[in-house]
Amino acid sequence: MALYIELANRLRDHIEHNFYKQGDKLPSVRQLAKEHNVSISTVQEAYRKLEQEGLVEALAKSGYFVNKARHTLDKLPRISRPPQRPLEVSQWEEVLGLLMNNGQQADIQLQHAMPYMKLATMKPLLRNLADIIKQQPEAGLGYNDIRGSNLLREQLCRIAVASGCHFHPDDLVVTSGCQEALSVCLRAVASPGDIIAVESPGFYGSMQAIKTANLKAMEIPTHPETGLSLEALELALDQWPIKAIFITPTCNNPMGFTMPEEKKQQLYRLAQSYDIAIIEDDIYGDIAYQFPRPRSVKSYDEDGRVLLCSSFSKSVSPGMRVGWIAPGRYRDKVTHIKYVSSSMCQLFPQLAVAKFIREGGYEKHLRRVRQAYEKQRDHLLNAIKNFFPSHTRVSFPVGGFVLWVELEPHIDTMKLEVLCREKGVSFAPGSLFSATGKFRHCMRIGFSDSDVEKTSKGVGLIAEAYKAMLMEEE
Amino acid sequence: MALYIELANRLRDHIEHNFYKQGDKLPSVRQLAKEHNVSISTVQEAYRKLEQEGLVEALAKSGYFVNKARHTLDKLPRISRPPQRPLEVSQWEEVLGLLMNNGQQADIQLQHAMPYMKLATMKPLLRNLADIIKQQPEAGLGYNDIRGSNLLREQLCRIAVASGCHFHPDDLVVTSGCQEALSVCLRAVASPGDIIAVESPGFYGSMQAIKTANLKAMEIPTHPETGLSLEALELALDQWPIKAIFITPTCNNPMGFTMPEEKKQQLYRLAQSYDIAIIEDDIYGDIAYQFPRPRSVKSYDEDGRVLLCSSFSKSVSPGMRVGWIAPGRYRDKVTHIKYVSSSMCQLFPQLAVAKFIREGGYEKHLRRVRQAYEKQRDHLLNAIKNFFPSHTRVSFPVGGFVLWVELEPHIDTMKLEVLCREKGVSFAPGSLFSATGKFRHCMRIGFSDSDVEKTSKGVGLIAEAYKAMLMEEE
Repeated sequence: MALYIELANRLRDHIEHNFYKQGDKLPSVRQLAKEHNVSISTVQEAYRKLEQEGLVEALAKSGYFVNKARHTLDKLPRISRPPQRPLEVSQWEEVLGLLMNNGQQADIQLQHAMPYMKLATMKPLLRNLADIIKQQPEAGLGYNDIRGSNLLREQLCRIAVASGCHFHPDDLVVTSGCQEALSVCLRAVASPGDIIAVESPGFYGSMQAIKTANLKAMEIPTHPETGLSLEALELALDQWPIKAIFITPTCNNPMGFTMPEEKKQQLYRLAQSYDIAIIEDDIYGDIAYQFPRPRSVKSYDEDGRVLLCSSFSKSVSPGMRVGWIAPGRYRDKVTHIKYVSSSMCQLFPQLAVAKFIREGGYEKHLRRVRQAYEKQRDHLLNAIKNFFPSHTRVSFPVGGFVLWVELEPHIDTMKLEVLCREKGVSFAPGSLFSATGKFRHCMRIGFSDSDVEKTSKGVGLIAEAYKAMLMEEE
Repeated sequence: MALYIELANRLRDHIEHNFYKQGDKLPSVRQLAKEHNVSISTVQEAYRKLEQEGLVEALAKSGYFVNKARHTLDKLPRISRPPQRPLEVSQWEEVLGLLMNNGQQADIQLQHAMPYMKLATMKPLLRNLADIIKQQPEAGLGYNDIRGSNLLREQLCRIAVASGCHFHPDDLVVTSGCQEALSVCLRAVASPGDIIAVESPGFYGSMQAIKTANLKAMEIPTHPETGLSLEALELALDQWPIKAIFITPTCNNPMGFTMPEEKKQQLYRLAQSYDIAIIEDDIYGDIAYQFPRPRSVKSYDEDGRVLLCSSFSKSVSPGMRVGWIAPGRYRDKVTHIKYVSSSMCQLFPQLAVAKFIREGGYEKHLRRVRQAYEKQRDHLLNAIKNFFPSHTRVSFPVGGFVLWVELEPHIDTMKLEVLCREKGVSFAPGSLFSATGKFRHCMRIGFSDSDVEKTSKGVGLIAEAYKAMLMEEE
């Protein structure tokens, strides 16, 4: 075991046994290095790991502290227990209902995973877009490279370094958002009838892509803090001819965890030993609260079996429809399927995003939203603590802007959602995040809106309706 | 048989037997009505039919004339004779070569089917786009209706009336160009292993969509003037469990014909009697040279079995990536697959196009390009007549901006294309337009460029290389 992991384990132990309490200052880096006779960088690495787990937080010029929001950790959602066999994906009607905003629109919309887009740091992007259209309209009118703008692919290579990846522009294919990326990759690695292993709970867009590609989903138990259970995955790999693993390991949707780096590496090795592909959805990776951001599974890829999918839909704006794939050894097949799927992508947004990155606007925007979302998470966790019954289980996001709430097992959040919408607040019912309609007693709440009072009010309304439901059934 | 068809047949006979010669004035509407004892509108209908076939042309205030460009008609390409069984689609490498513009770029590019975009009538569209981004940036930043902007769908309903269709905005789904529309529709009507009947030659984008959807293509002999052979189709339907017909019946790509209206109706009845779907690619429909434009097969649809696909990629600009589907009874499945394929589409171009249509810019632009393309066709036909050997067979486009040239059977246009590219001119080799690499002695030439001298020069260079090839082999 690496030294820093040993040290991190020891520190975690101390925190979990309340040797250090919530908000306590932890020993300085120098002090620990001396105490344990390890290098400064080993201690930094250990702290970085605990930070990533959400256990400690770094405060500028003050050092490391036990995370204050840590109180929720003893009430994390339970690890899921999906059926241990591949199944056809259902739930499309429910997803459609969410997407189409059926019925009455709620005032407080907590159902979406939509980034906050009113920050001033967005302005350069919009200016770029308007300027490009004015100054070089011809550029975007014709057909262009089906792999996307080379200018954009160069910039994508630049930002991918932060996740530990070193690409060449020719390694990348631009897509119409991450949904197209995921859909194309699935069709590139699997044939009709094949089985895909997915997180449980997992993103409904990928589940539906599995469905329409005539594939089957095998839901794998997923831990709310460290992600997909590798033991359960290995068991499944032994029993079923699984073709690929579909995973959102960094700032997971819907739970918000980040799989620890060594576990990412183990996952990769496991895929290697069973010779299967990994489709890695990294759409939230750049808005992890920690800096530098966590490494991707792709960064461990030695033989091109990982297909990394991402986009600017969560970090900047979904309306731009700028996504991308680093398809590894599947490049030719991915290029083919991408062409068939929608020919090339619109050029203007690609050029605008490329300029946004090149001129530093993207990094600046990330810094702002990262801080904002982390604060909003703490507000939301507090609101849930204040309004919901104490038995309520909540995930602890370390990035992104969604979290997962587990209610009493007999509660149906599809019904709860209808009641809540009447009161003016909406959320995403849990069953959307299962291939087979599990998690009926769970919900996903989005907290990207900077108006924390509004979000709190919404949480209060949901809690009220939930408590009334509990009372009724007693 | 309808009166007007009888009359049209008689007039066609007269023209084909040189009773009326090229450029001759034909009898006036009144005169014919009197002669044949039919109504004025019957004569008008008959003339309209012959105009649509490219046999006669109407000159404002002068009456009807035998089309001058009619000299090519006796040298039309032969009707194709594809293998009479369903086959896997190949040819992807060749298509990719065309799309990626592999190797050296030619000065004179006749290989693309790219519209001419330097006309002043395009300006309002670009202004709309820039204005919308400046004035209401929020509008396009977030997620929006997965079926596309309602404002755009309203305008699409408006323009669809010209093709004889009466839609409600809820009947339509916006896509990222026509390629996504075709791809989504294929997946909506067929399951892996199913057989799709296609035109031969036919558009490579749809062939490749058939390939990646794990379907098989059954190529149907296609007449260069009237389109898909219904006799051959019926024979195929009798023998094979064909799931759908994939067709570009109006201003066909690559041949440029428009299937006569009564034949479109027969095609629909045939699909009805075998209970199969029709995917109709109408992407060139709005740039038919005749006004009003020809009716679509969809306009005869009584039970929702026709899925109409279109976009603004040929009429305005492919870079906009604004396409759409009128999916009939497949609406729910199409919506599902469209969502999975790429979630929603970028909103800005949709709003810009909607405004372009609403304010009359689209109709104005169509009027300009229709006239321009028709003139350019005549120039190109003249150039081919001047430069190519007299045995060369050429199709006679009645819309759009591509035509089909058939050379001596032993000529390989893949090889010819390499030679031509070295001389500075490129075209699309014929084998791209077959599921199985037929038409090696054919080529598609695009003539959208308003610089007719340049196009003529290109044709001259191709003819030179072709003649040298013929000489060598003697």
